[in-house]
Amino acid sequence: MQLGLVGLGKMGFNMRERLRAHGHEVIGYDPRPEVTDTPSLGDLAAALTAPRVVWVMVPAGDITRDTITSLRDVLEEGDLVIDGGNSRFTDDRMNADLLAEKGIGYIDAGVSGGVWGLKNGYGLMVGGSEADVERAIPIFDALRPEGERADGFVHAGPVGAGHYSKMVHNGIEYGLMQAYAEGYELLEAEDLVQDVHGVLRAWSQGTVVRSWLLDLLVQALAQDPEFREISGYTEDSGEGRWTVEEAIRHAVPAPVISAALFARFASRQEDSPAMKAVSALRNQFGGHAVKRATTEETLRAPDPKK
Amino acid sequence: MQLGLVGLGKMGFNMRERLRAHGHEVIGYDPRPEVTDTPSLGDLAAALTAPRVVWVMVPAGDITRDTITSLRDVLEEGDLVIDGGNSRFTDDRMNADLLAEKGIGYIDAGVSGGVWGLKNGYGLMVGGSEADVERAIPIFDALRPEGERADGFVHAGPVGAGHYSKMVHNGIEYGLMQAYAEGYELLEAEDLVQDVHGVLRAWSQGTVVRSWLLDLLVQALAQDPEFREISGYTEDSGEGRWTVEEAIRHAVPAPVISAALFARFASRQEDSPAMKAVSALRNQFGGHAVKRATTEETLRAPDPKK
Amino acid sequence: MQLGLVGLGKMGFNMRERLRAHGHEVIGYDPRPEVTDTPSLGDLAAALTAPRVVWVMVPAGDITRDTITSLRDVLEEGDLVIDGGNSRFTDDRMNADLLAEKGIGYIDAGVSGGVWGLKNGYGLMVGGSEADVERAIPIFDALRPEGERADGFVHAGPVGAGHYSKMVHNGIEYGLMQAYAEGYELLEAEDLVQDVHGVLRAWSQGTVVRSWLLDLLVQALAQDPEFREISGYTEDSGEGRWTVEEAIRHAVPAPVISAALFARFASRQEDSPAMKAVSALRNQFGGHAVKRATTEETLRAPDPKK
Amino acid sequence: MQLGLVGLGKMGFNMRERLRAHGHEVIGYDPRPEVTDTPSLGDLAAALTAPRVVWVMVPAGDITRDTITSLRDVLEEGDLVIDGGNSRFTDDRMNADLLAEKGIGYIDAGVSGGVWGLKNGYGLMVGGSEADVERAIPIFDALRPEGERADGFVHAGPVGAGHYSKMVHNGIEYGLMQAYAEGYELLEAEDLVQDVHGVLRAWSQGTVVRSWLLDLLVQALAQDPEFREISGYTEDSGEGRWTVEEAIRHAVPAPVISAALFARFASRQEDSPAMKAVSALRNQFGGHAVKRATTEETLRAPDPKK
Repeated sequence: MQLGLVGLGKMGFNMRERLRAHGHEVIGYDPRPEVTDTPSLGDLAAALTAPRVVWVMVPAGDITRDTITSLRDVLEEGDLVIDGGNSRFTDDRMNADLLAEKGIGYIDAGVSGGVWGLKNGYGLMVGGSEADVERAIPIFDALRPEGERADGFVHAGPVGAGHYSKMVHNGIEYGLMQAYAEGYELLEAEDLVQDVHGVLRAWSQGTVVRSWLLDLLVQALAQDPEFREISGYTEDSGEGRWTVEEAIRHAVPAPVISAALFARFASRQEDSPAMKAVSALRNQFGGHAVKRATTEETLRAPDPKK
Repeated sequence: MQLGLVGLGKMGFNMRERLRAHGHEVIGYDPRPEVTDTPSLGDLAAALTAPRVVWVMVPAGDITRDTITSLRDVLEEGDLVIDGGNSRFTDDRMNADLLAEKGIGYIDAGVSGGVWGLKNGYGLMVGGSEADVERAIPIFDALRPEGERADGFVHAGPVGAGHYSKMVHNGIEYGLMQAYAEGYELLEAEDLVQDVHGVLRAWSQGTVVRSWLLDLLVQALAQDPEFREISGYTEDSGEGRWTVEEAIRHAVPAPVISAALFARFASRQEDSPAMKAVSALRNQFGGHAVKRATTEETLRAPDPKK
Repeated sequence: MQLGLVGLGKMGFNMRERLRAHGHEVIGYDPRPEVTDTPSLGDLAAALTAPRVVWVMVPAGDITRDTITSLRDVLEEGDLVIDGGNSRFTDDRMNADLLAEKGIGYIDAGVSGGVWGLKNGYGLMVGGSEADVERAIPIFDALRPEGERADGFVHAGPVGAGHYSKMVHNGIEYGLMQAYAEGYELLEAEDLVQDVHGVLRAWSQGTVVRSWLLDLLVQALAQDPEFREISGYTEDSGEGRWTVEEAIRHAVPAPVISAALFARFASRQEDSPAMKAVSALRNQFGGHAVKRATTEETLRAPDPKK
Repeated sequence: MQLGLVGLGKMGFNMRERLRAHGHEVIGYDPRPEVTDTPSLGDLAAALTAPRVVWVMVPAGDITRDTITSLRDVLEEGDLVIDGGNSRFTDDRMNADLLAEKGIGYIDAGVSGGVWGLKNGYGLMVGGSEADVERAIPIFDALRPEGERADGFVHAGPVGAGHYSKMVHNGIEYGLMQAYAEGYELLEAEDLVQDVHGVLRAWSQGTVVRSWLLDLLVQALAQDPEFREISGYTEDSGEGRWTVEEAIRHAVPAPVISAALFARFASRQEDSPAMKAVSALRNQFGGHAVKRATTEETLRAPDPKK
């Protein structure tokens, strides 16, 4: 079928390629002339046959909102917009309402798979009406992995359910990565274990901890043994935070996912204000030596007799 | 090749089957007459041709130690014992020394795969001397999954390295399971998500969180939707604890693995003494109502004027 | 000086008493006739001499917002409203703007001390303009504990800073309580320690962990040894959640405060959906016995050969 | 009464001073000639009148063990040794047995108060027999804070109970410090709060979070505003680790105390191996830019088409 695709970055570019390989007609729009198929959103709308389906694959937040607002202007009643970005699920209701004013449908689609999706297919979680989802099924079938539809695609519920599911997916992902990471660090710390890379690789088949993330970890270590080339400074991209906020809203204990999130926060600090406070306290009550911020000298404990 | 196998429980029984299917001659010993091939350890030793290889697959701790002590008595110089149980790595050095007194070799083998190993093969991490490991390679090759040896087997280091690796494997496993579990609970808590089982299943292919544990979770939910039949009471079997203790010994931060362990401890408490203390404190300073242990009545706050 | 006081509940009632004991003229309003001094907010405004100062001490959220909206109608330019409730700091800017439309000033005041404040004084953290705070100083001086002003009062910054500080205060409180609670549970668990109450009481003087919360814990145990009368079911009242949300917004690691919050969430669950998932997973891969939700029987492990 | 005191370091020196101020006769021994009262342990024993009481105040572990072994040689039946150091409670049984062979009694005493104990008195938790404890009561009364005995002293149980209680005390201390530290960091992160030091000081009186540790934090900030002079590098001294290990042994959830411990571990790492692994994983699946270990350049994501 025919699809408009707005946003041809790391994800959108690959998705266009995969969709075309599956026989769909994709007209892509991106502000960068070297990748776009059409000069403007207006031209995109004009090039598509009504009723249109347009997939939005741009950064979450303001850019998604602006794109959807612009699409509302150039699309018509009966068209359908799919937001495939990592939008917060609370944005979906607003986006859907904005489009509904003109009779345009809306689906939120959580998309997982990263740069590997082109080859392996993308895991898809979507939210929207039965009719809207039905209409876009050929697109979903092309994007998702081969095999049974239910193994790589779900219509999770009404508008918002797709991004909610993707958000939780990413929260879990934080926890999984941190679990492997802690185990990796412990193996590295123990002299008995002389082949850490080999141990991780041996877990690839047969073990309880085998997973795609483990495969990637093995591959990363093959490329950069002992991670000499990489720093521990780790970004977080929003969905881990939202997951913990949702856990709080629902009073769901989330010690693992939050610990993984906080480890990323800590990884970005040159020095921790909290730990300065702890260190200062130890010095106050115990006269314990502390490390000076700039030198190796230690501060003297206070004299309680004064 | 020929192998003695001591312990024909859930794991050992299946391993005998898999080894025989791969053409090895296995003589199993177990105190239960209905499964054993031989009436005693002495008979087992007599039935094997020297130099013997005997695999021990019994519960960790005293039973393993007693079994190895008994084997020392019936085996001879040049024989080899492999401990495939979930022994603590600190036991391995002692076991090896015990056997070395008589010139008997020792390998510690971490074995992962549970009840599925019979079919899929077992992930193996072993510790021991180069020569001992080389000698047992045909056994390891039969037990491990098909495919490249390094994807399901590692000679991790000297005696102890195998069980150390298995211990870390299990610690990671705790973290992974808890990450999925937190995400599952959050999906269940959110009304927008109407098909939780479908969401988890949709993650099976293409997504970043796909794994064998996820497949099992999907399967478990198919068997028992919303886990109505199962309680949250969760045992722990030692290796999660040892992993956290090792993290402490090596000063490696392990917030995720420890959170997963503590969640299991908490799952087994009818009521938490700690939370009674917190609740009592809230009552003391804030006059907040508290729940009585046995009824729904609330206690009165203390009167600070008295 | 003269003060209007809206809300005569657990906190407001005691504050009126303390203010009067310090010689201030307080006219209190509360919808409950048995405690109020005046039949309506309008009468309250009429009874106060302009420029008026009115302290609002009602539950955070809608009730506070409604009260402030009503006060805007009955107050005049030059009057001053102080919100002493546990409002979220993000509400303060809106409340201040609402009142500023009519030229009415606004102070947000975090108040700590619970039911003991009547006797000991209340710790106060306020946000607002220099002039507004200066004007209300006699009230703050009466409410705060005896001694140096800076030991029980701070003008923390502009509007919002008072409630922000109070929110962090409560977040810390969660962490402190949980730390004592974990230690208490551990003492109870160890047979060597035969006098847990005595140990806690011995910490009251001289030790590093002495604090007012510890004193309350000792007192609570004196009233209810081993907490036999109280359940571990523990509410949370909003500020712990906001603290973790602020930690996320500022990318500040908050493992302790969040762990304390999650422990409360868990305390309110009859059974944990997450731990059901973990237990189900253990059963799937290891054939580990699980506890049935309603009986002590165990489920059989799946047979992987099928 | 008369007391031998072995170890005149930061703690022992002050204790000798406090005991003498309370009228006791203290003969101190320390290998440093400038502080000792007697040239050797043998001379110490000779100078004391039997039945002797000797307080050992030396670093936990080997030094304590060696000291006690030496004391056994120079003391006699009917004498009493008190270990006031931070020994692990598991050492106490061994120490007691060692001394019991010669009929010498043993008390383990947990001592809290740090450098402030000289002035304020020390919180004391002791383990031992009724008779031994009774005999040393005059010493305990001099060391503990003024006031009721039970507010600064406890006979917690048999040998080991004193150090167990002290261990838990220190574990709690870790949690308390971290709770304040997280709150401090959050206050520092929020622009609305313009006087962080003032906020903490305002909590000194009347609030729920008031404590001696808070007083020390206020004092530390007065000496070094914003902790510019101190680094976050924070040691841990054993008892926090033992507390978590005991929590594991007793299956007591200890998320707060362990989080505080792990934060210290992390504070001492220049870069985190675990976070390198997480960062490498993000790069693998998402093509997310990563920070190079030594430069600001970023690594390219892998090309999944290859």
